[in-house]
Amino acid sequence: MTKQRIAIDMDEVMADSIARFQEWYDRDFQLELTLEALRGKNPRDVVAPEHQPALRAYPNTEGFFRDLPVVKDSQQIIKALTEKHEVFIATAAMEFPNSFLDKYQWLQRHFPFLHWRNFVFCGDKSILNADYLIDDNAYNFDGFRGEGLLFDAPHNALETRYRRVHSWQEVAEILL
Amino acid sequence: MTKQRIAIDMDEVMADSIARFQEWYDRDFQLELTLEALRGKNPRDVVAPEHQPALRAYPNTEGFFRDLPVVKDSQQIIKALTEKHEVFIATAAMEFPNSFLDKYQWLQRHFPFLHWRNFVFCGDKSILNADYLIDDNAYNFDGFRGEGLLFDAPHNALETRYRRVHSWQEVAEILL
Repeated sequence: MTKQRIAIDMDEVMADSIARFQEWYDRDFQLELTLEALRGKNPRDVVAPEHQPALRAYPNTEGFFRDLPVVKDSQQIIKALTEKHEVFIATAAMEFPNSFLDKYQWLQRHFPFLHWRNFVFCGDKSILNADYLIDDNAYNFDGFRGEGLLFDAPHNALETRYRRVHSWQEVAEILL
Repeated sequence: MTKQRIAIDMDEVMADSIARFQEWYDRDFQLELTLEALRGKNPRDVVAPEHQPALRAYPNTEGFFRDLPVVKDSQQIIKALTEKHEVFIATAAMEFPNSFLDKYQWLQRHFPFLHWRNFVFCGDKSILNADYLIDDNAYNFDGFRGEGLLFDAPHNALETRYRRVHSWQEVAEILL
């Protein structure tokens, strides 16, 4: 495969933000947010109506994106991708302005081989000029000029329109 | 002209950051940074060597981008552009992570008609998928897939490779 430009989403692709939702929901309401409950749905849609405002506020709370667990194999495979392709990290951070610094520092800490020149904080991912976009939200492929690879996540379980990858190992098989 | 996607840089195009350099340089060293001295050069290159570390640090200091003056006619013309075209604001904020919130809030305050979905904080602008890029730094046109319009600024006075616009009125003549 010739050199391609690959854009990679952060949440649920590189960083496990569901783990933080589960942790904070348990902390605030002593209730478990199970992966089964999240199948085909966003966290805010599976909790009781009176808990929804809290869940909506979580991602825009400083610290939500801090120290998120790293998705399995993402460091090793993304490092290999940077050696063969051009890699950009593209996250819809504009929705959560209080997440900017957390996200920036998380990338620097866990992916020190990436340069900040290749970070993109945006809202609408159709602005990306790339050949591939690896993302867990299918709506980010709307208007994207390259090929979307849907990274498997509970909430997108029912999406069938795009090529699905279940792990970073599967990404490696396609792009390395 | 059919609907185009137009990406617009912030500093020296929408926001007058030279004014802030002048203000802080005067505050810290009681010296004037004149526009003549800045012709063809960046602020950090026209001051005495012992002042250069301070100038380099300015843009990454919280508050530097806060309340910057708005460039003449930019609000009115950008508003008109959004009615005819698709407008994205693309700023190389990644170089200055402490500027993120200042820049976001400045845009919301002075350009309330723009949606955050259309904000892009990046490093390398070749990632933009747009037809036009209005920018004062010619290096941002390297690898950009659309047409660059060089917004006139003291530091780019000697650049001759790109179509130059001297004001927002001139942008309006081309794109409206």
